[in-house]
Amino acid sequence: MPAEETEPTVVSYSYLGPAGTFTEAALKQVPDAAGKTWHAVNNVGEALADVVSGRSTAAMIAMENSVEGGVSATQDALAKMPGLRIIGEYLVPVRFELVARPGTVLADVRTINAHPVAYAQCGSWLNATLPGHGHIPASSNVAAAATLLHGSLADAAIAPIGITEHYPLEVLATDIGDNNNAVTRFVLVSRSRVIPAPTGADKTSLIVELPDDVSGSLLGMLEQFSTRGVNLSLIESRPIGDALGRYRFIIDADGHINDERMADALLGLRRFSPNVLFLGSYPRADKQTIEFTSRYDDAIFVEARQWLDGLLDPTA
Amino acid sequence: MPAEETEPTVVSYSYLGPAGTFTEAALKQVPDAAGKTWHAVNNVGEALADVVSGRSTAAMIAMENSVEGGVSATQDALAKMPGLRIIGEYLVPVRFELVARPGTVLADVRTINAHPVAYAQCGSWLNATLPGHGHIPASSNVAAAATLLHGSLADAAIAPIGITEHYPLEVLATDIGDNNNAVTRFVLVSRSRVIPAPTGADKTSLIVELPDDVSGSLLGMLEQFSTRGVNLSLIESRPIGDALGRYRFIIDADGHINDERMADALLGLRRFSPNVLFLGSYPRADKQTIEFTSRYDDAIFVEARQWLDGLLDPTA
Amino acid sequence: MPAEETEPTVVSYSYLGPAGTFTEAALKQVPDAAGKTWHAVNNVGEALADVVSGRSTAAMIAMENSVEGGVSATQDALAKMPGLRIIGEYLVPVRFELVARPGTVLADVRTINAHPVAYAQCGSWLNATLPGHGHIPASSNVAAAATLLHGSLADAAIAPIGITEHYPLEVLATDIGDNNNAVTRFVLVSRSRVIPAPTGADKTSLIVELPDDVSGSLLGMLEQFSTRGVNLSLIESRPIGDALGRYRFIIDADGHINDERMADALLGLRRFSPNVLFLGSYPRADKQTIEFTSRYDDAIFVEARQWLDGLLDPTA
Amino acid sequence: MPAEETEPTVVSYSYLGPAGTFTEAALKQVPDAAGKTWHAVNNVGEALADVVSGRSTAAMIAMENSVEGGVSATQDALAKMPGLRIIGEYLVPVRFELVARPGTVLADVRTINAHPVAYAQCGSWLNATLPGHGHIPASSNVAAAATLLHGSLADAAIAPIGITEHYPLEVLATDIGDNNNAVTRFVLVSRSRVIPAPTGADKTSLIVELPDDVSGSLLGMLEQFSTRGVNLSLIESRPIGDALGRYRFIIDADGHINDERMADALLGLRRFSPNVLFLGSYPRADKQTIEFTSRYDDAIFVEARQWLDGLLDPTA
Repeated sequence: MPAEETEPTVVSYSYLGPAGTFTEAALKQVPDAAGKTWHAVNNVGEALADVVSGRSTAAMIAMENSVEGGVSATQDALAKMPGLRIIGEYLVPVRFELVARPGTVLADVRTINAHPVAYAQCGSWLNATLPGHGHIPASSNVAAAATLLHGSLADAAIAPIGITEHYPLEVLATDIGDNNNAVTRFVLVSRSRVIPAPTGADKTSLIVELPDDVSGSLLGMLEQFSTRGVNLSLIESRPIGDALGRYRFIIDADGHINDERMADALLGLRRFSPNVLFLGSYPRADKQTIEFTSRYDDAIFVEARQWLDGLLDPTA
Repeated sequence: MPAEETEPTVVSYSYLGPAGTFTEAALKQVPDAAGKTWHAVNNVGEALADVVSGRSTAAMIAMENSVEGGVSATQDALAKMPGLRIIGEYLVPVRFELVARPGTVLADVRTINAHPVAYAQCGSWLNATLPGHGHIPASSNVAAAATLLHGSLADAAIAPIGITEHYPLEVLATDIGDNNNAVTRFVLVSRSRVIPAPTGADKTSLIVELPDDVSGSLLGMLEQFSTRGVNLSLIESRPIGDALGRYRFIIDADGHINDERMADALLGLRRFSPNVLFLGSYPRADKQTIEFTSRYDDAIFVEARQWLDGLLDPTA
Repeated sequence: MPAEETEPTVVSYSYLGPAGTFTEAALKQVPDAAGKTWHAVNNVGEALADVVSGRSTAAMIAMENSVEGGVSATQDALAKMPGLRIIGEYLVPVRFELVARPGTVLADVRTINAHPVAYAQCGSWLNATLPGHGHIPASSNVAAAATLLHGSLADAAIAPIGITEHYPLEVLATDIGDNNNAVTRFVLVSRSRVIPAPTGADKTSLIVELPDDVSGSLLGMLEQFSTRGVNLSLIESRPIGDALGRYRFIIDADGHINDERMADALLGLRRFSPNVLFLGSYPRADKQTIEFTSRYDDAIFVEARQWLDGLLDPTA
Repeated sequence: MPAEETEPTVVSYSYLGPAGTFTEAALKQVPDAAGKTWHAVNNVGEALADVVSGRSTAAMIAMENSVEGGVSATQDALAKMPGLRIIGEYLVPVRFELVARPGTVLADVRTINAHPVAYAQCGSWLNATLPGHGHIPASSNVAAAATLLHGSLADAAIAPIGITEHYPLEVLATDIGDNNNAVTRFVLVSRSRVIPAPTGADKTSLIVELPDDVSGSLLGMLEQFSTRGVNLSLIESRPIGDALGRYRFIIDADGHINDERMADALLGLRRFSPNVLFLGSYPRADKQTIEFTSRYDDAIFVEARQWLDGLLDPTA
């Protein structure tokens, strides 16, 4: 089998720029991306639109943040843009510093420019250190830092550690985030229908809508996984948006669509749910091998199918 | 397709005799049995052994009695004799009379000969009418009646209504059973691997063993049916017999193995259980069409499989 | 608290006699029974009726047999006779011998007298050793043995090992049962409302009817136990008897009604089921301490109740 | 009982200001708030801090938005600030208009100032009508509108319908939201321990953490509700924030803590979960009476408790 059939082919990448973002740090983790074309874009929607339109063959987007939870915009964009597939997962530590124009000292800081999420993540340090400060929301932290040099009204900006490699700014304080273990999970998204080969340490991402009432049908949906021994590492709800109380669920399940138990869970899910979006099966960033009880082994599924086939066709 | 491939071929029948038994009444309900060879045998084990050995092509056996419950001997015999299949179901009303030698009157009756099950089913009437009587257990009620004429020590016998068509006995009291709606369910058993065609009003019979602990695994077993929308009309436990607390379950599930939801439940069951015995799919005696929610329609299963196939092979 | 309030007081016992039965062997295991009045009776119903009427203060009855399963008559009698409670559990090994009148040799045996259950339990040995024999059903094995000396038409009888201590018979073969580990479980039943104190190795016996449809409601019933961490050591179905497909369930649950998790499961069960019969909490015969996860500890239940009370009455 | 004991007493209110916000519209729905002191604050955290500190006796905060889902900041603040209780619920239709300085026409608009959520909610209209526009994020829509008159760099702002009652601006387009049925759900929060009396149309809000693994324990948590017949109208996940894959769940359950089935579900939940936060029971904004099957009636719970008490204390 030629290589292009077993692995998605990627030749150009879109990512949330500019240089210095956490997203760029994630993209630097992709060996194949070295030396390829990179397009810095302004938001997740633009990155995904590049993929849909064919401008890029893949986009790196933030999917989950251990402090702030599922990145709503990403989840909603994936739910609404057909034909996208996740082909890889990457983890980037989230560490912030407070930067300012050269010459500024901490005591001078009155107003801080920062993306609302980053701002929230540094809340404890900011409230303790700069109790009377004001906040100007920015569309990105790197932009907040960059505009300090181009007419920003703010005195300082919250930026990813390393920003001073890109801009002539001064660090007023470092590691100002509330949680030193904070990590953002990024995924690489393409239009390729080719599913990365199973590695034994894989993840399957899904977006699932529930039929009618939430509580009973959420139970019913979870049973599709539990009765096949499939564990979930992520389940988040997002409103569908047409009425209060209607949700879709963003799910990461342990295992690969080529695993019998996962394939069977997908069948059960598809029959159960009015809408299942398969976002892909791909290797986990943490390379942790999936554990499951031997009762859900591939061989058990194959044997059961042969048994049923024998009952249905006694002449075989 | 020739008829012999779509329906099991039966040319000779074994049944619990002699003439006059409820089992004979069940066999009389089988149109195809008219004019064929009938073997009257002494017990269920013998009837099934006739089928296993090929002496008969089918046997009519009692499966469930609305008063006395699952006929344990039948359930155990089916569990232990490999290769048997149920191909039909028949219901016979269970009505008893007290019979005696001509000239006997009710006031003379001191000792009653009766099969223990029939004796138990007439307990209220007997205790009220003949408070001081004794009971001699018989291996069958017809035998109890017949031996009244050949040296029985008993004064009377409990027998199926209609027994006086076969033996010159007198009826002392009729309809003496505690429950006038009592019914016995019989099944016709053969060795044929051919499954009767689905009719929409079918039943699938199974014997299932549970893995390890009873309470958790019984829940897990029941979920195999409930998550596929398959209802059970019978579930009875029988000890496996090797140790206290180990059970097999005798199950009748609504639907036919050719129904997608049933086939999928059987797959789940086979994966779950250390031992599943498929006893057959066959038309229900009551001809009641199976009701199920449209979510479990065949088309839903087919569509889900096509969807999964499309994901697994994007070139297809 | 005086002793008579913490433990049921028993002064006379009924049991299935005569001397030599397994039931007598069970009663011999009860230390308090030594030197008290013992009434040998003819069947389980009579033994329980003695307790209901006050003739005896307790009755020893067979409850479960590892080979033949729940003793239907016992289960049905307990379900129908109100006010009975189980206060103790006893295990008796089930071992049989073939006995005959002195002078008989094995080769002479044509006809065997035996209770149908015992007869079934010795089936393998009998079919191998005496292939052409006939069976005369007896109401009890001891009676079968005893009547060999008083006009029985049989050549031999199946009896409990030890029968020759009571009757001048000869043993033709010993340990003829199919399963050398067979055990019968007996329970001591009284009318006392006093529940034996918890020992940490207790069992709670129940008879439960299900609402409407069997499969869904059986799941719902089992969840009452599983959501409180209560394991079941026995669950058997018995037809209620008014119509096909209607069952009651005989249940033994691990633990004592004084355990918080058991009390809460009973509450849930009582709300769920149209009919719950509490048969008692009593020490297990095997004295095996009940294992359960610490999540279901008494302290957890008490703390939750205090938390709820605090919410409901903020002034407390 | 004096009124102050049966209903929380509120004398001053904090809300997200300034005049013209949706939050103000919600507060106007509270009859008791008329004529009391209102504090306009800058964000949800400030509003809740006012309540915690005692500056206000209640705060009106946005809880759920049918388009954008759970308001993360509110959910997280409630999870982290101890002692807060929801005492009322209010719904406000979410309708937007595009406003500008007098004299501006739609064709002039290059840059739009808007809160990111409002901006997202008007995405379809904006992309279709003003394809090349830029977005400046604002901390609130009313602020965006107000600053148009005080040096804003933007040409227009997205604001709640009605904003021109407060500011001399011109409406360029109205009802520009993607979803005309969009509604925001607000709740009134106080420190009072007094729970509003049940009305039959109540809601109970909770924040619940799960033990260990997500999928199995989410099932176990949902069963605490389903086995007591309690339906959920909202279940949303929020990361706890200490590690990827750890969640708390924001739950709205149908019914009142004074309902037996809800109280019992709370007990089960408290035993199950390492952390349950009771946010209150209060009348639903939609006044829709809670439906539940009669099996979960208060009387059923009371009867079961009496039955258990009778078993536990036979002398009572």
